[in-house]
Amino acid sequence: MKRADPADFSARMRIYWEDTDAAGIVFYANYLKFFERARTEWLRGLGFGQEALRTQANIAFIVSETRLRYRRPARLDDVIDVSVAVVHLGQASLEIAQEARRAGELLADGTIRIGCVELGTFRPCRIPNDIRLALPR
Amino acid sequence: MKRADPADFSARMRIYWEDTDAAGIVFYANYLKFFERARTEWLRGLGFGQEALRTQANIAFIVSETRLRYRRPARLDDVIDVSVAVVHLGQASLEIAQEARRAGELLADGTIRIGCVELGTFRPCRIPNDIRLALPR
Amino acid sequence: MKRADPADFSARMRIYWEDTDAAGIVFYANYLKFFERARTEWLRGLGFGQEALRTQANIAFIVSETRLRYRRPARLDDVIDVSVAVVHLGQASLEIAQEARRAGELLADGTIRIGCVELGTFRPCRIPNDIRLALPR
Amino acid sequence: MKRADPADFSARMRIYWEDTDAAGIVFYANYLKFFERARTEWLRGLGFGQEALRTQANIAFIVSETRLRYRRPARLDDVIDVSVAVVHLGQASLEIAQEARRAGELLADGTIRIGCVELGTFRPCRIPNDIRLALPR
Repeated sequence: MKRADPADFSARMRIYWEDTDAAGIVFYANYLKFFERARTEWLRGLGFGQEALRTQANIAFIVSETRLRYRRPARLDDVIDVSVAVVHLGQASLEIAQEARRAGELLADGTIRIGCVELGTFRPCRIPNDIRLALPR
Repeated sequence: MKRADPADFSARMRIYWEDTDAAGIVFYANYLKFFERARTEWLRGLGFGQEALRTQANIAFIVSETRLRYRRPARLDDVIDVSVAVVHLGQASLEIAQEARRAGELLADGTIRIGCVELGTFRPCRIPNDIRLALPR
Repeated sequence: MKRADPADFSARMRIYWEDTDAAGIVFYANYLKFFERARTEWLRGLGFGQEALRTQANIAFIVSETRLRYRRPARLDDVIDVSVAVVHLGQASLEIAQEARRAGELLADGTIRIGCVELGTFRPCRIPNDIRLALPR
Repeated sequence: MKRADPADFSARMRIYWEDTDAAGIVFYANYLKFFERARTEWLRGLGFGQEALRTQANIAFIVSETRLRYRRPARLDDVIDVSVAVVHLGQASLEIAQEARRAGELLADGTIRIGCVELGTFRPCRIPNDIRLALPR
């Protein structure tokens, strides 16, 4: 997997009680939430809010595949940085590599495949050109 | 608050890792989920599924107020029973008393106020007559 | 309920996909998460991190009662501000009033009762003096 | 990936409001919860409850890798069946293939790698013999 480039986007977030489980650490499923928050902020930074995509463009980006490895436990109060890097850009889908780090230490990483679909029908559709052009390569 | 009557509806559910937090017990906010699961099964038992309400009647029941007391901690693997009892039935809203118990022991209880709204506008509307007639009194 | 004072603490957060439900709005149970994030940041601002409370002081603040009213729906991408104000300070418990607002508009508000307990036994214990002294009155 | 065998374990569950998002479908991250509920019930059926593993054996099964594909959206009120099949059994880890189906239709599938660790240290340890012997091959 492509390593995070210093130029890649990164979003910082905090671990709260809601994120932990009875093992005293972050519940692994929640990394999918953290990764999505980072992708949402990254898209917003490129000029595309989720609600605007939904109501104006009538499309949604739907996650079709996720591959994650959980390497080190995160705990209550930890601050983590979640990176976003496009590793493949297709006609109707893209693949994104993401890492969660705490003070540089890798906690979890993986790739997320995302498809562009029409709202309502959930049929695949072409990624709008303005988004395509805005994506870093 | 009205005590659970043996005739009241009750739904049984299990505590999983997803429900716990780093204190080793159920995260209190999750009782709102448990209570809603019980209300959903109760409505279903009366003949009203959530998706049918949403797509056919074009209404949703929206929670407008919740009051909960958390009395004893629940833990991983516990089986809990969540009761449902109507305590007030108005034109466009109803109030429901609920309790979560583990082998009879009270863990959490409270009241939930629910409004009937049109989907989309979220404007209050009259509770449909067929539902009103089906509710136990 | 005490209205938010301009001097009160407030934490800003964003609404993500994870926070919404099929009605297109924020799932009401998630306000309890937002309120807790704000209380956590407020305590941190006073010098008390959750993990330090847990591992050093061997105590936890356990939510014993929550009363919330959900007034206006929040949606994807909304930015909300969640306030924190102490309304009662007892020996082993405190009561906090909180509001969630979007650009000043009240979305949800309520009071949270919190007990100080020993970790492990979950027995009530006195709120440590350093915390008590740090709380704004 | 190994296809679900009719002899494999399967757990049935219901989709509630808490599981959906503003796209009107199940939020993909929640399949990790559904998959874990099924694994927990499967382990319990073999005689191993999570809380007993935690407090008696002082171990926990920690998820170290997840690979999921989301194929068809699930919706409010859907009933889904989640299967569990061991595809690899190592000294300190195992790999499990899982599928979520609605009336036979495949909604999501994937593999989950799980490591056996000591509680507290989170160091890998050998899967206890009684569990190892109980696992279907």
